[in-house]
Amino acid sequence: MDTLSENAAFGGTQGVYSHQSTATGTPMTFGLYLPPAAERRPVPLLIYLSGLTCTHENAMVKAGAQAHAAAAGMAVLFPDTSPRGEGVADDDAYDLGRGAGFYVDATEAPWASHYRMWSYVTDELPAFIRENFAVDTARMGITGHSMGGHGALTAAMTFPDRFRSVSAFAPIAHPSASDWGRKQLTAYLGPDEGPWAAHDATLLMRERGYPGAVLIDQGTDDQFLDLLKPEALAEAMAARRQPGVIRMQPGYDHSYFFVATFMADHIAHHAAALAP
Amino acid sequence: MDTLSENAAFGGTQGVYSHQSTATGTPMTFGLYLPPAAERRPVPLLIYLSGLTCTHENAMVKAGAQAHAAAAGMAVLFPDTSPRGEGVADDDAYDLGRGAGFYVDATEAPWASHYRMWSYVTDELPAFIRENFAVDTARMGITGHSMGGHGALTAAMTFPDRFRSVSAFAPIAHPSASDWGRKQLTAYLGPDEGPWAAHDATLLMRERGYPGAVLIDQGTDDQFLDLLKPEALAEAMAARRQPGVIRMQPGYDHSYFFVATFMADHIAHHAAALAP
Repeated sequence: MDTLSENAAFGGTQGVYSHQSTATGTPMTFGLYLPPAAERRPVPLLIYLSGLTCTHENAMVKAGAQAHAAAAGMAVLFPDTSPRGEGVADDDAYDLGRGAGFYVDATEAPWASHYRMWSYVTDELPAFIRENFAVDTARMGITGHSMGGHGALTAAMTFPDRFRSVSAFAPIAHPSASDWGRKQLTAYLGPDEGPWAAHDATLLMRERGYPGAVLIDQGTDDQFLDLLKPEALAEAMAARRQPGVIRMQPGYDHSYFFVATFMADHIAHHAAALAP
Repeated sequence: MDTLSENAAFGGTQGVYSHQSTATGTPMTFGLYLPPAAERRPVPLLIYLSGLTCTHENAMVKAGAQAHAAAAGMAVLFPDTSPRGEGVADDDAYDLGRGAGFYVDATEAPWASHYRMWSYVTDELPAFIRENFAVDTARMGITGHSMGGHGALTAAMTFPDRFRSVSAFAPIAHPSASDWGRKQLTAYLGPDEGPWAAHDATLLMRERGYPGAVLIDQGTDDQFLDLLKPEALAEAMAARRQPGVIRMQPGYDHSYFFVATFMADHIAHHAAALAP
């Protein structure tokens, strides 16, 4: 592991590190915020998955999570959104390839050799964090924004024992019925829609739901509402009687100002669920 | 005035606007956060001056000011750090020219024609804000980071009736004795050091001080301590019996993680001073 930077922040440390990933076969960079409490005991971990075009850095510098994580005694992990580097396939579009890993394990060429973000964020990276930092990954929650909200919801519903709390900001809620989804799932998983269902939050909600309360915030002025399809997930949550809420937040758009505004609520949601 | 963007944030609005400046003779871009309270009555204003290489955007997206400003019912103004555009002189160095206006009115060629950030931030821009937004500039404070801390301290000590509260994050505290200062003051104001004294916080503190309490935060692990020279300002403050404090914050560096960590304290400091 290489330490790329460490900055004091809210009494704790915001670090940026790089390590060699077995899942992606590339070096991967991540941000990790350790609160002051981590100096005394292992702390719970919240994974924050970012959206299209983002890196480990966007939420780390713009979402304001550290202030609330420090107060809650929680670590926050900011993974990258795709493998990167020489030899990693890419596409000219902003929404495919680098910066757009969609949190799946690709099975199709040319993506299958490196685009394995599902294994990376649900398995390899948490294990790596547990081994190298004062973090108790038995108390681990997951959240994310947009494509990252999709990743968080699908990961939590697939591995509820691993992710003991879940929330999302403006998630891509029904990718198999959206242009943010059909294109990427076709490219990464192939045209047979069967395997897509494991990566669609609305379909997973209909099929299995989540054993805890789900917190989702969605701005009513989000410029991507037609692609995000919160109504599909809302219907599935209500039909299932899923504990939780989709809050339609008046006037908010898709930006990090929206994420930052509601970050305190999300940290509190996870902190309550992950309390010892 | 052109509206470049407006995003809902913490119940208020984070806007970015552009207008033609008389002072600089160029279009100028600024960010303005209006808290929810601005919908009901004019609110006090805090001007945040940014540091070298920054634009209006850095603090606006990274300092976490909006959350605290919303709670305090205070607007926050994020000016750019220099004029920009075709025909505006520049230098290859990061610390001279664009992004490095140093909050002075240049008198020397080639800078004098546009580099008039002193007049812009202390006079023209506040007047423009008062005329166009629900802001009460009779209740106005000023803060900033690094070069912007220099600008805030010098502006407040020069115009204490205009700036009724002042604070700074890691300010360039004694530019006439620093390589962050001598180079720029020579370029913008000429080699005669006489006019420099009006733009040196330590010299102004020795000469006149400030009628209210001064809040300054400085990280002990700041990589630029030798250039910032907080010890000169601390000595001047103590010698003068200036109300206020320079807090040496253990472990913090020069980054926005440092600024964000102490932003709540600074907003509270200004809110208390600017209360009706």
